[in-house]
Amino acid sequence: MTTLNRDPQTIRHWDDEVDVLVVGMGVAGAAATLDATALGLSTMIVERGGGGGGTSAMSGGVIYMGGGTPLQQACGFEDTPDEMFKFLMASCGENPDEAKIRLYCDGSVDQYDWLTGHGVPFKQTYYHGVSGEPPTDDGLVWSGPEQVHPYCEIANPAPRGHVPQIEHQGGPLLMKVLCEEVEACPATKVMNARCTALYQEPGGEVVGAVITVFGEERNIRANKGVVITTGGFVLNNEMLEHHAPLAKRCKMRVAAEGDDGSGINLGVSAGAATLNMSAVSISMPITQPWGLKRGVMINAQGQRFVTEDTYYGRLGEHALLHNNGRAWLIVDDEIFEKPTYMDKVSAVGETFSELESELELPSGSLEATMQVYNRHAEKGEDPVFHKNREYIKPLQTPPYGALDCTTEHALYAAFTLGGLRTDSDARVLDPVGDCIPGLYAAGRSTSGVSVGGYCSGLSLGDGIFFGRRAARAVASR
Amino acid sequence: MTTLNRDPQTIRHWDDEVDVLVVGMGVAGAAATLDATALGLSTMIVERGGGGGGTSAMSGGVIYMGGGTPLQQACGFEDTPDEMFKFLMASCGENPDEAKIRLYCDGSVDQYDWLTGHGVPFKQTYYHGVSGEPPTDDGLVWSGPEQVHPYCEIANPAPRGHVPQIEHQGGPLLMKVLCEEVEACPATKVMNARCTALYQEPGGEVVGAVITVFGEERNIRANKGVVITTGGFVLNNEMLEHHAPLAKRCKMRVAAEGDDGSGINLGVSAGAATLNMSAVSISMPITQPWGLKRGVMINAQGQRFVTEDTYYGRLGEHALLHNNGRAWLIVDDEIFEKPTYMDKVSAVGETFSELESELELPSGSLEATMQVYNRHAEKGEDPVFHKNREYIKPLQTPPYGALDCTTEHALYAAFTLGGLRTDSDARVLDPVGDCIPGLYAAGRSTSGVSVGGYCSGLSLGDGIFFGRRAARAVASR
Repeated sequence: MTTLNRDPQTIRHWDDEVDVLVVGMGVAGAAATLDATALGLSTMIVERGGGGGGTSAMSGGVIYMGGGTPLQQACGFEDTPDEMFKFLMASCGENPDEAKIRLYCDGSVDQYDWLTGHGVPFKQTYYHGVSGEPPTDDGLVWSGPEQVHPYCEIANPAPRGHVPQIEHQGGPLLMKVLCEEVEACPATKVMNARCTALYQEPGGEVVGAVITVFGEERNIRANKGVVITTGGFVLNNEMLEHHAPLAKRCKMRVAAEGDDGSGINLGVSAGAATLNMSAVSISMPITQPWGLKRGVMINAQGQRFVTEDTYYGRLGEHALLHNNGRAWLIVDDEIFEKPTYMDKVSAVGETFSELESELELPSGSLEATMQVYNRHAEKGEDPVFHKNREYIKPLQTPPYGALDCTTEHALYAAFTLGGLRTDSDARVLDPVGDCIPGLYAAGRSTSGVSVGGYCSGLSLGDGIFFGRRAARAVASR
Repeated sequence: MTTLNRDPQTIRHWDDEVDVLVVGMGVAGAAATLDATALGLSTMIVERGGGGGGTSAMSGGVIYMGGGTPLQQACGFEDTPDEMFKFLMASCGENPDEAKIRLYCDGSVDQYDWLTGHGVPFKQTYYHGVSGEPPTDDGLVWSGPEQVHPYCEIANPAPRGHVPQIEHQGGPLLMKVLCEEVEACPATKVMNARCTALYQEPGGEVVGAVITVFGEERNIRANKGVVITTGGFVLNNEMLEHHAPLAKRCKMRVAAEGDDGSGINLGVSAGAATLNMSAVSISMPITQPWGLKRGVMINAQGQRFVTEDTYYGRLGEHALLHNNGRAWLIVDDEIFEKPTYMDKVSAVGETFSELESELELPSGSLEATMQVYNRHAEKGEDPVFHKNREYIKPLQTPPYGALDCTTEHALYAAFTLGGLRTDSDARVLDPVGDCIPGLYAAGRSTSGVSVGGYCSGLSLGDGIFFGRRAARAVASR
């Protein structure tokens, strides 16, 4: 018998009654709550932690926005919703949700204004570099592969990573500001509270939920809707094993304690469909400092497999999902620098043949790869993977080295991208696309904008965007 | 409002009442029905077609069994449940269900006896070849990559494809025999009948279903259980787009009309979890005749990516899922034969360099690949992908050719492997592993034995196996 779903007819007394119950106080839950109260809805937000923040507060703080935000303009970058749309449609996986992405791009400038309106500060300066967590307090960064083949030919590149003004990780600041706003708003806040079941009428309508606070159950009636914003499932070992088993090999799971899939499971038990449950973001930040993009990444067959200058948030996906986490970055003496986030050198040799045998690669394989690479690199070209000219240089200054990019030794950082199927109003859908009345979701408990290829800032970004849309949809119900 | 799920309290009159309702009359439904009636359950089986058979009747008829079946013994092959288990655990994808596979292997000889007991004939002879659809009436074939690296080092290889005795496709014969058995058994059979909704009590128990026959709804009470055996979803374009978008590029979808995911969706709407929805079987039978396994398969970077002698049911997965369906098989004049299932030669040349430029591959890339391949092949070795010695030969007799293995021109045949989450008693589970009382499933409407790597015969095989287990589980309820 399922335990996640209960019959409301068994309830004589509701402990509380509100218009909308928001479950989880990461960025999506905060956004939903702020807009729900602004729209005049009586709102309760519950959070399993002792305070708000969740994984959003542990993130780099990058929010993917564009289409010509004031910050982009201040830094001298041109961008339009259409260029942003073209880039996201091309880069966000095999089956991106066109309707969501269209709305997301068209509403991005408004989202920027909403954030600044709530007091989130963005320094009006540009960090000349590519990063999910810039080391400075600059406001704008490249947080995806916009400048990299093939995307640079598909859409005019613009940096779209917007970072709250604080050095290193902007996530804590973002959530500090938004949690203070939630604190000041008329919503009821209940901390240390898990949502452990939904109340669902026969026929499908969700009318409330069970909230468990310090072991005690409270039955909350939600007259207009329950909004699930509980994050992904990267910390749930069984779910990860079921849906994205390779991700278990990543050293780091990017998550706060709450990312155990509980909200996804509540939705599924209510008849919701899920989408892209096997999709994961896998970062492998080997190419920092950026000079290392001049290296050549190879797999266990001694073959190249990726444009080395792509965003490091993509390198891990290629290495782990298509090459079983067996990868090395080949460098020569001229370009070698100690990588910021890893330091194991697997092999050193005076020739590629020596490297090859130290790495136990098939004999001749790396030699052949490097021969082809160097021949073209001498002309500043890379017809195989189309690396940007800026990072093309023949590797011909021994000794050569192989930086260890295997899952055993390198930093791979994973989180999940799949979740509940929602429409672009954040309504949770069943498998034939019908709404489950009264049930809404946003953030990483849903399948959002990115369903395969990831850019930093898309999770905070679509969490805010569809959290807000959930509030609007509940209000109009 | 969801339409797939209804409240039983709205029903005053049930049109029919049985112990068990089986939905779908492919091999899983037939097996469930035969065993349910044998166990004394009053049984109704409904089928949307005008008669039984489904996709099972369109298949090659191979049933994956082993562990020392009488047929394996008659043909002089040794096999044990443990060797079969080791092979399936290693080859069936990233997250195979160990409990299911263990039972499946341990019960395989019994399953063979069950089939012959129901009159399915297996000629006690061995077809010396690898095939999902042998051209003869021999009973035993290799229907997977048991003899291929790395599996041949993991488990003792044995052929496990058991084919009913008829030339070419055994599927129609298999289903003819089983449908006659169903016809003769005491179950009520209703053809042209779709299951359009489940009746589910608040709290989760499934107690019946809506059957729509020629536009008219009939409400069937199932006192002990509903068994979903409606097949996969490869014909449902929206589901395929959502879960396995690359499969849409396959020329052939291996399916009868019913494979539209309807049963999966009924289960999901009742709160079931799904597993491996993105998993697909993709066959690309380019290496027939087998001499073509001596060719070298390359991708758009001019690189090898697969052991060319692997089962053709695997070649397509590697080519499509990891190499974007861009592949060519390089041959020389000595090994060239016209492939059985495709005939476009993309390029011909006196040198690899010529081929390369005709194929618009990066210059030097194919040359480098062939240089490495030929160098090792001269010693009868393939340290890069470990092809069997039998198929290793340097390609050095011009002219050379590139056989077109792209999704645009080659035969790619797809069906889906993901579906409802079930336990090893075929009970449908919710996302935290609790049963949905009264709901069972088997066959390709579930995530079964193979969840990523496919061998011919696993779908008929686990359909029969877990169809039978569903009957037993319902009976013991």
